[in-house]
Amino acid sequence: MKTTKKILLSEQEMPKAWYNIVADMKNKPLPMLNPGTKQPVKPEEMEPLFAKGLIEQEFTTERYVEIPDEVWQLYKIYRPSPLVRASGLEKALDTPAKIYFKNESVSPVGSHKLNSAIPQAYYNKIQGIKHITTETGAGQWGSAMSIACKHFGLDLQVYMVKVSYEQKPYRKFVMQTYGAEVIPSPSDRTAAGRALLAKDPNSSGSLGGAISEAVEAAVTHPDTRYTLGSVLNHVILHQTIIGLEAEKQMEMVGDYPDVVIGCFGGGSNFSGISFPFLRHNLVDGKNTRFIAAEPASCPKLTRGKFEYDFGDTIGMTPLIPMYTLGHDFQPADIHAGGLRYHGAGSIVSQLLKDGLIEAQAVQQLDTFEAGVLFARSEGIIPAPESTHAIAVAIQEALKAKEEGKEKIILFNLSGHGLIDMTAYDSYFSGKLSNYNVPEDMIMENVSKLEKLV
Amino acid sequence: MKTTKKILLSEQEMPKAWYNIVADMKNKPLPMLNPGTKQPVKPEEMEPLFAKGLIEQEFTTERYVEIPDEVWQLYKIYRPSPLVRASGLEKALDTPAKIYFKNESVSPVGSHKLNSAIPQAYYNKIQGIKHITTETGAGQWGSAMSIACKHFGLDLQVYMVKVSYEQKPYRKFVMQTYGAEVIPSPSDRTAAGRALLAKDPNSSGSLGGAISEAVEAAVTHPDTRYTLGSVLNHVILHQTIIGLEAEKQMEMVGDYPDVVIGCFGGGSNFSGISFPFLRHNLVDGKNTRFIAAEPASCPKLTRGKFEYDFGDTIGMTPLIPMYTLGHDFQPADIHAGGLRYHGAGSIVSQLLKDGLIEAQAVQQLDTFEAGVLFARSEGIIPAPESTHAIAVAIQEALKAKEEGKEKIILFNLSGHGLIDMTAYDSYFSGKLSNYNVPEDMIMENVSKLEKLV
Repeated sequence: MKTTKKILLSEQEMPKAWYNIVADMKNKPLPMLNPGTKQPVKPEEMEPLFAKGLIEQEFTTERYVEIPDEVWQLYKIYRPSPLVRASGLEKALDTPAKIYFKNESVSPVGSHKLNSAIPQAYYNKIQGIKHITTETGAGQWGSAMSIACKHFGLDLQVYMVKVSYEQKPYRKFVMQTYGAEVIPSPSDRTAAGRALLAKDPNSSGSLGGAISEAVEAAVTHPDTRYTLGSVLNHVILHQTIIGLEAEKQMEMVGDYPDVVIGCFGGGSNFSGISFPFLRHNLVDGKNTRFIAAEPASCPKLTRGKFEYDFGDTIGMTPLIPMYTLGHDFQPADIHAGGLRYHGAGSIVSQLLKDGLIEAQAVQQLDTFEAGVLFARSEGIIPAPESTHAIAVAIQEALKAKEEGKEKIILFNLSGHGLIDMTAYDSYFSGKLSNYNVPEDMIMENVSKLEKLV
Repeated sequence: MKTTKKILLSEQEMPKAWYNIVADMKNKPLPMLNPGTKQPVKPEEMEPLFAKGLIEQEFTTERYVEIPDEVWQLYKIYRPSPLVRASGLEKALDTPAKIYFKNESVSPVGSHKLNSAIPQAYYNKIQGIKHITTETGAGQWGSAMSIACKHFGLDLQVYMVKVSYEQKPYRKFVMQTYGAEVIPSPSDRTAAGRALLAKDPNSSGSLGGAISEAVEAAVTHPDTRYTLGSVLNHVILHQTIIGLEAEKQMEMVGDYPDVVIGCFGGGSNFSGISFPFLRHNLVDGKNTRFIAAEPASCPKLTRGKFEYDFGDTIGMTPLIPMYTLGHDFQPADIHAGGLRYHGAGSIVSQLLKDGLIEAQAVQQLDTFEAGVLFARSEGIIPAPESTHAIAVAIQEALKAKEEGKEKIILFNLSGHGLIDMTAYDSYFSGKLSNYNVPEDMIMENVSKLEKLV
């Protein structure tokens, strides 16, 4: 306990540019394809959907992209975030490993999502866009966009999966407090929503359906664009501020990670903490391991197939080269809502294919056991998503103990769990279980993909 | 926005001692009285209830009390907390005032309560106490004690007002995640609880009843003590770390507050932010104003009477010299649960009586209006309690605008509102209202007090 607990950067030390790993990849990610022509998507084809500044970032191969001053100033509300020595957890595990975590839960919405929401709102604003649409499942991304849009004077429509809208009202109230309009999806606002309601008037909604509605609402209204919270290259780019800060902070205490861990949904927080360190593997001969911790109930990285697939369930997006379980894969209803996505971004997928990062599937009960141990030893109740990273960090720390090695472990605490306390209650009440996806279910979904390209 | 947003101290700069304002008061607070003998309570009379180290602090007249190293180390989980320049709020108000807030919402439980929970658990542990009891209304204090007790290996029973236990389950889940036992009060565990249930089997509970149960459970079990989260001198002492840090942080930016504001329930966060600055009024000739912001529905400071009164509803505590609405005052069911207390601590009461601090009552709708403006301009959704301080800070900033003065305003953001989002929903839905306590209700309650002493 005598060690420094929190390693802090001053605001002036906050990075001035994001890092783009594409510049350092020998095998570049494959291009997205237009599902009609099967040709690589051109930047201008994306303009009805996304702000130009973001499309430019989606395609750039520059190594560093400058953070606009307005974005950098706004980051100061909660950044730089602390790097924390998990001394309490180390003691609880009696491990010789040093465990550090980057605490992204300090943002006002309680997660890393604001790192990309702020620049996404900014680039829309400077283009003169007035209205933003997006979708949200459990509500983390929608909350982040709500703050960012309020700041830049943009109005925001969030299509929220109806079952979450009704059963998890806290995040809806958060978005409303920040001034966003929250619409339960499917809704009668869009043709897509009306079609879904015609099919099933009592539909409880899905992320796929909400994406369809948000996309349609953007392309059919003037001065309106759509935003997405993960998967895409420009989102990953923004999230690298996590790892860039962590790199400076590790330097301050004279340590360098042997292993870096992040939970994995679409890839935004894992990539954010990992890529600035992975760069040193690619160009400086470092040997750090990078582990993406995904739920066993949605195992695209460990059991999915590398194929071209749609980013959404309905099939409205370009085809993305990704590890995927198939775009109509229906993940079991686990509590880590942010990790229930069928695919992975194209950069992460290429890195995994090339053996430059690893992936590990974690069972739900193990994640909550890890989360409770973390809460009791470090004081912070982690988001159910983040407990996946903690579970793997604990495994690595126990392995270090067996081997008697002083390994340096770094993981990303992507968010706190204060708005997800019903998940912990379900865990303590014995209502949660583990789940393994049947192999034939994966095969069936994935086999349909071959005819897409 | 070009200014420094967060003023941060390093861990090494965190104060090593708490400040005890009693040492600098010309008129010392009156002593607590034994309700039976009407004589001043002696320290040893409190030993069945509280740890000795805390009783010593309750009575000390030393100016500074050293923070034990174990407590200081544990504070590092979330302290020093940031002092933040509310540049977004200043811009929204278009005021020449500089507004600063101390952000106590960064603690893992989301409020300042942990500042006292940690030392309270510590002093019990070093005395060899094994079991702790406490009560909680909405759950902020119970959550803080849960973390602190888990750290020091004490087990904890929290008697939680039944209506909150059932209607506000999130904090209950937080306490359970930290390993505490949470008991809805009234319960059948204690004679007090059984008596309350005999009177009304469907009783939804009250803070007074929960205190009675927690006190009884402590004094009737071996190796068990009780803890309280506000009002008492030792709690106020621990909370001065807020103001001591803020003092250093204001120095770093070359500013000194013209006015310091805190919301007021029992006095712990108001005193914590104020007393280190008030010291300079008392001994260095400074002229800072100190404003306690209380709810108009529970106006003990602005409309109560200075009398000896019980600290709890049932009448089990010593008699405390306080501004009070009478111990059987039933505050309206406002959403700022932490401010629904009939009295004020003896130090604050004496200071108010002597005109050294001010008080202001704020209406509920004004507090939520202020909270929403703050959320939208600063990004953080404040706890309903904290919105009282924000409302007064906004008033002061608008007054500065009228007067064209560059006033320096400092307030304490005692906590965030992420677990209180239903309150914001009620506000947006138009379900909340203002409330003025009828004068005869106050008179009736207070008139009974004369026969107590």
